[in-house]
Amino acid sequence: MKKIGKYLIKKKDMAKLTPRNEDYSKWYNELVVSADLAENSGVRGCMVIKPYGYAIWEKMQAQLDKMFKETGHQNAYFPLFVPKSLFEAEEKNAEGFAKECAVVTHYRLVKDEEKPGKLKVDPNSKLEEELVVRPTSEAIIWNTYKNWIQSYRDLPILVNQWANVVRWEMRTRLFLRTAEFLWQEGHTAHATREEAIEETEKMIGVYADFAENYMKIPVIKGLKTEAERFAGADETYCIEALMQDGKALQAGTSHFLGQNFAKAFDVKFNSKEGKLEYVWATSWGVSTRLMGALIMTHSDDQGLVLPSTLAPIQVVIVPIYFNDEQKAKIDEVALRMHDELKAKGLSVKYDDNDAYKPGWKFHEYELKGVPVRIAIGPKDLEKGHVEVARRDTLEKQFIATDEVTDLVPNLLQEIDNNLFKRAVEYRATHTTKADTWEEFVDILENKGGFVSAHWDGTTETEEKIQEMTKATIRCIPLDNQLEEGKCILTGKPSKQRVLFAKSY
Amino acid sequence: MKKIGKYLIKKKDMAKLTPRNEDYSKWYNELVVSADLAENSGVRGCMVIKPYGYAIWEKMQAQLDKMFKETGHQNAYFPLFVPKSLFEAEEKNAEGFAKECAVVTHYRLVKDEEKPGKLKVDPNSKLEEELVVRPTSEAIIWNTYKNWIQSYRDLPILVNQWANVVRWEMRTRLFLRTAEFLWQEGHTAHATREEAIEETEKMIGVYADFAENYMKIPVIKGLKTEAERFAGADETYCIEALMQDGKALQAGTSHFLGQNFAKAFDVKFNSKEGKLEYVWATSWGVSTRLMGALIMTHSDDQGLVLPSTLAPIQVVIVPIYFNDEQKAKIDEVALRMHDELKAKGLSVKYDDNDAYKPGWKFHEYELKGVPVRIAIGPKDLEKGHVEVARRDTLEKQFIATDEVTDLVPNLLQEIDNNLFKRAVEYRATHTTKADTWEEFVDILENKGGFVSAHWDGTTETEEKIQEMTKATIRCIPLDNQLEEGKCILTGKPSKQRVLFAKSY
Repeated sequence: MKKIGKYLIKKKDMAKLTPRNEDYSKWYNELVVSADLAENSGVRGCMVIKPYGYAIWEKMQAQLDKMFKETGHQNAYFPLFVPKSLFEAEEKNAEGFAKECAVVTHYRLVKDEEKPGKLKVDPNSKLEEELVVRPTSEAIIWNTYKNWIQSYRDLPILVNQWANVVRWEMRTRLFLRTAEFLWQEGHTAHATREEAIEETEKMIGVYADFAENYMKIPVIKGLKTEAERFAGADETYCIEALMQDGKALQAGTSHFLGQNFAKAFDVKFNSKEGKLEYVWATSWGVSTRLMGALIMTHSDDQGLVLPSTLAPIQVVIVPIYFNDEQKAKIDEVALRMHDELKAKGLSVKYDDNDAYKPGWKFHEYELKGVPVRIAIGPKDLEKGHVEVARRDTLEKQFIATDEVTDLVPNLLQEIDNNLFKRAVEYRATHTTKADTWEEFVDILENKGGFVSAHWDGTTETEEKIQEMTKATIRCIPLDNQLEEGKCILTGKPSKQRVLFAKSY
Repeated sequence: MKKIGKYLIKKKDMAKLTPRNEDYSKWYNELVVSADLAENSGVRGCMVIKPYGYAIWEKMQAQLDKMFKETGHQNAYFPLFVPKSLFEAEEKNAEGFAKECAVVTHYRLVKDEEKPGKLKVDPNSKLEEELVVRPTSEAIIWNTYKNWIQSYRDLPILVNQWANVVRWEMRTRLFLRTAEFLWQEGHTAHATREEAIEETEKMIGVYADFAENYMKIPVIKGLKTEAERFAGADETYCIEALMQDGKALQAGTSHFLGQNFAKAFDVKFNSKEGKLEYVWATSWGVSTRLMGALIMTHSDDQGLVLPSTLAPIQVVIVPIYFNDEQKAKIDEVALRMHDELKAKGLSVKYDDNDAYKPGWKFHEYELKGVPVRIAIGPKDLEKGHVEVARRDTLEKQFIATDEVTDLVPNLLQEIDNNLFKRAVEYRATHTTKADTWEEFVDILENKGGFVSAHWDGTTETEEKIQEMTKATIRCIPLDNQLEEGKCILTGKPSKQRVLFAKSY
């Protein structure tokens, strides 16, 4: 076995994470970088998604794409650029995104005669009309749908797009808030209001199903208040998750857009009854922000923790040996185990790279959140067992070698269930009712989490509360019970509690 | 059965294509639009890829992605924007792409006080440094690799990216040349020159394999001449296909980049021998242009022709009936057939939408290139057979109902083989040797296709030939035989023939 070089040790020394309770934000940033998920790029606010992080995103994409197709949607692709005149057509939408738009104004660079080897924008290449890099695609898509829709027979249109979008954020954080991010955006067109609302609700349901069953993140489905709605929507549905630091994270949104875009782009159809009517619209999206939610829901001070559903490597097998003879014997057992687990559909890696010591590998795969680690040493061979460690609890157990193939799939299932259960419990203990302003502030300051409280229904009060506490109304849960009460701030009457929290 | 409304007939009247021999270019444009593959958008030079076209692209992506992963590559994602200072770092690359760059100069729109309801670029949001929308990602990626590579242990890096890129083309055509297009770009880093060349050659091999075995397009692997090389490459390998109008189409390229980008971005590594050396690079890509190649290789005057490997619908079953009783009987047979074919892994559609007549459906699925169409009418039921039509030859045959499930997979295979064979034959009859200038010009003008001719090896001659004939050197085939000869234009000595053609 080779000695571990100076460079490698140095590299991995950096990987000891700041504990969460010391500095959660620092822990997050360190984890994202040292687990090889993403890093800041040479472009302000834009990230590089590294292969390991991208492999997780690909798994999310594949599952979501399957769910979209199963619910009747097809993928398509629309232009990256939105001409200014289209961008400004839906007034509220334009106003909402104008503040943070990357704008293309020229189409050529030429040699800078004053600076040898440098280029400059060619003033002669100024565009007649500026192009906005899409922050979202309603405008360009509804300008297209105009030509696709004449009759009720052309409806519904159920289309999704996987794309990059750009919003010029001033303060960015890897995955959570970046100037460019990857997402999917569904854009559907319907003949009736009812059908569009049904679609909006169906898709928030798909997101909740995905979050809970694949990401193992419990979410609350709810409605946004008017102040928090998508610019251009009549109603915004959301799923809200709770992170380990007590802050909420909006994990997905589905918008009922009414006839706003149809009116802005003059999209009408001949109804069955022969009347010319405006089309009804929805849009819905999730983004690489989900990576942030995944990381912050499950991970610990040792690094990333992943459910098996999203782990690029589900099981890693690490041999421990001191000479070639031992290695040969371990190889035999390990490779058989590898092949058997693979035959069961699992993603397995046998890491016998002898440039790294077993301890280094243990640390590395913990950092990267591999759900199950199997270690095999000479003594294990003698005893006919292997050491199996689960990433979620860091517990180890010995399992008879010939039982591993049968037991590991169950163990992965158990890990997934445990991750969800743990997150549900955390949320349960961090969802608190507040009936006085003092309670409300105390919970937000000292405990965090969701605060369920009465609110008088006005944007004015909502904004005041935000100014005073930094908490916002995350949502009005869809399964809310009606309950008479008084607004936490103004004392005015209220008919239901809403969920407040500080948030990402 | 309902009557076909006025609207539908009107819509489909438009779908009669201009015959290829009348106006090939018009035929292409009409086909792309009427088969619902793509259309021009409201943004100059940018296309909308429609769901049916995108479904074909998704199949290409899935197969290519699998092949990239099988050859050891991982996906990642790098920023859309390239700061000007990074863009200009590799001089030749910058020079090559500067002429056609979309440039972001501002990051905010504000209300235009002079024009109510309109927005304008906020002059206060000018960027300190302009951002180029990536025309290709070598610059931003090598600026990233700089931080990933210190030691030979960090090599090779084998990364691919699926992304959109923008090149400000003045004359655009759907799929073939658009300002924005979708592609994949592989970017690899290696410790030695030999390894990088091996990778470059391996990937042009992967592309050729994909083109021939999945797209059923025969291609010639070759090297580009210096004048046709990728800006910043030491050597460009390509695959060249021949379209039905006798023009060549470059379907994929793989570049050996030498140490050019490593030097421009100062990317060095500690070699096994302990020396600090520049890293060797490759890049390789194919794009939505492949859709153009697919369409123009196989399709005919009736519309699109697809190999089963890329067809979103491989088999369509159309019922023919005049009353509900007949329909019920046909349903029984058709649905069983549908389920059996599906169980064999085929993509099957039973189209019993009664808003459209069978004749309309026949026309529609021919237009969309569905490889096999099965029609079932009352008489067929009596005789215990169905009518099976293959899209490639438009031939029909009756097949016993209970043999359909067994025979259709073979028929699809036969169609795929026939498409490839037909294209190989076309290329064979359209590859001609020319030994005099007169022959050369005559072939280019009257017959088209590849012209195999001697060339003196100079860029000057190459450019002169292009000026005089519009033909370029498509490639120097990798399997070229050495042969003494004289340049077709200058009469200077030459050691091998090269392939000339007019091209897309």
